[in-house]
Amino acid sequence: MKIIVDAFGGDNSPDSVIKGAYLAAKDNIDIILTGKQSIIESKMKEFGLEPNPHITIVNAEDKILGEDEPVKAIKEKKDSSMVVGLRLLADGVGDAFVSAGNTGAVLAGATLIIRRLKGIKRAALATVIPTAKGPAILTDCGSNVVCKPEYYPQFAMMGSAYLEAVIGEKNPKVGLINIGTEETKGTETVLEAYALLKENSNINFGGNCEARDVLKGDFKVMVADGFTGNVILKVIEGVAKEFTGSMKEMFFKNIATKVSALIMKKGLKEFKKKYDYKEHGGAPILGLNKPVIKAHGSSNDYAIYKAIIQADTFAKQGVIEKIQKNI
Amino acid sequence: MKIIVDAFGGDNSPDSVIKGAYLAAKDNIDIILTGKQSIIESKMKEFGLEPNPHITIVNAEDKILGEDEPVKAIKEKKDSSMVVGLRLLADGVGDAFVSAGNTGAVLAGATLIIRRLKGIKRAALATVIPTAKGPAILTDCGSNVVCKPEYYPQFAMMGSAYLEAVIGEKNPKVGLINIGTEETKGTETVLEAYALLKENSNINFGGNCEARDVLKGDFKVMVADGFTGNVILKVIEGVAKEFTGSMKEMFFKNIATKVSALIMKKGLKEFKKKYDYKEHGGAPILGLNKPVIKAHGSSNDYAIYKAIIQADTFAKQGVIEKIQKNI
Repeated sequence: MKIIVDAFGGDNSPDSVIKGAYLAAKDNIDIILTGKQSIIESKMKEFGLEPNPHITIVNAEDKILGEDEPVKAIKEKKDSSMVVGLRLLADGVGDAFVSAGNTGAVLAGATLIIRRLKGIKRAALATVIPTAKGPAILTDCGSNVVCKPEYYPQFAMMGSAYLEAVIGEKNPKVGLINIGTEETKGTETVLEAYALLKENSNINFGGNCEARDVLKGDFKVMVADGFTGNVILKVIEGVAKEFTGSMKEMFFKNIATKVSALIMKKGLKEFKKKYDYKEHGGAPILGLNKPVIKAHGSSNDYAIYKAIIQADTFAKQGVIEKIQKNI
Repeated sequence: MKIIVDAFGGDNSPDSVIKGAYLAAKDNIDIILTGKQSIIESKMKEFGLEPNPHITIVNAEDKILGEDEPVKAIKEKKDSSMVVGLRLLADGVGDAFVSAGNTGAVLAGATLIIRRLKGIKRAALATVIPTAKGPAILTDCGSNVVCKPEYYPQFAMMGSAYLEAVIGEKNPKVGLINIGTEETKGTETVLEAYALLKENSNINFGGNCEARDVLKGDFKVMVADGFTGNVILKVIEGVAKEFTGSMKEMFFKNIATKVSALIMKKGLKEFKKKYDYKEHGGAPILGLNKPVIKAHGSSNDYAIYKAIIQADTFAKQGVIEKIQKNI
């Protein structure tokens, strides 16, 4: 497998992307870095990184910025690290693509250049969520802010295929994100989606999932429109940040609490790791002809490394073939 | 001020409601308990509670259940503790109403019996949220699952009036819950709501509030449609539960960590209190002719006590007059 990585996407790029690629190269993963070759090479020198047989650079003079209008950027910045990378994927030069850049642009680029699988109505951004009972999938997380009822069963099917293949969860229970557990709750779209999910035999539908149960882990694949999914993801992120901040404050109050913090060190580390997005790689875009992973915009080198590993598994496990079979 | 309290609403009713009313009576608040008198009196005996001059009972033979269809229940169960309580409020026998019962029924009953203020398009459920910078308001939290753009400025105005009057926050900054900070983000409804909020001079609009910033506290009044607001509220609740659960596990691992837990006791207590919904009373329903508070369904006696105190302040501070002035 060969993973194409956008060296100029993300808040900490290209530094974290180059370092993350080197971490993955240690695991014998072949990588193509796209982006301005002279900068990448001078950064490698700066970081004391020797040329590596697992890492190839493909030059791209331009880059897409966070503030760029997605579709316009994809159409006009043809020599950007993102567009060049996506073209390499489309042409079969690599097997998967990773970018921590402009989310809208990755989504637009993936749909325009890689294209959707035949029969898939909308590609969906899926996020792996750490729950009390292991990883779960939430989709859509922002690709489609407004959804028609018929999108939901496809989101559920794609999320299930991904979870089965990449995480190894068999026949995962699907939940529809809603404001109550009763079948009669929600907007008209959600009510219609419920009916369609219920009659779909390709998935293991378990009913409505109240937002308070997202981290509980009973539902392994949770489906929502992109607005709601994105909101859920960001609330989790925000609350986690507030909580760990409060905990830190609590532990640094005085000498006694600092000693406690030392005793708790291992537990605290596990706690932090459990809810750290960096541990869980990026968000796969489901419904495309090829594997694309959107890494978190503020990814550090370790998060990029994890996203590359995830892209490698995504490509190896035949997720796309499974989705295709179920359409 | 006299607060009417639905003795047969909520998972722990009537026990927690009776006990909560007695706590409030200690603060010299006059209370009318509605519900089956014989049961209330026998419960009082069971709890060793003497008749109290601050507490009156108004008999209601029936009660609305959690699974009842809201509008139907309000129309048909005329002698339920909830409907009797709302009628007492409408008739001016009391100054505010508190119920921990069926949310849909409280909303339907409030709209049908208390009625909306003239000019208010929709009543909205508002929740006080503990943030890093003090209490903030999120509204709507589930009253209107689908919203028209013109509802949002009213939600913002009502939330601002409540926060100013009850919490004492002057000219609170209003944020529109969205999936990005840019003005161009969101659904069509949200985009139109943005424009209306921006041009409204009655409020202090500060732009989009990303869901990750809800607990940060920069925005004091956050507006959303009822579906999104409800989802946010429940995610916060769920994540808080997961986190405190993980922390507990961490602290009970071995003797050393248990000693740490003892040292941290005070800090942990403060931490728990900060994010405990029971501390923050119930959710005011804004836009009605009289003050109505929906307490959390799983309220214990302390939470009921807090909701009664809140109802008392709601009635005393002239929130409704302020809203009326701004319509």
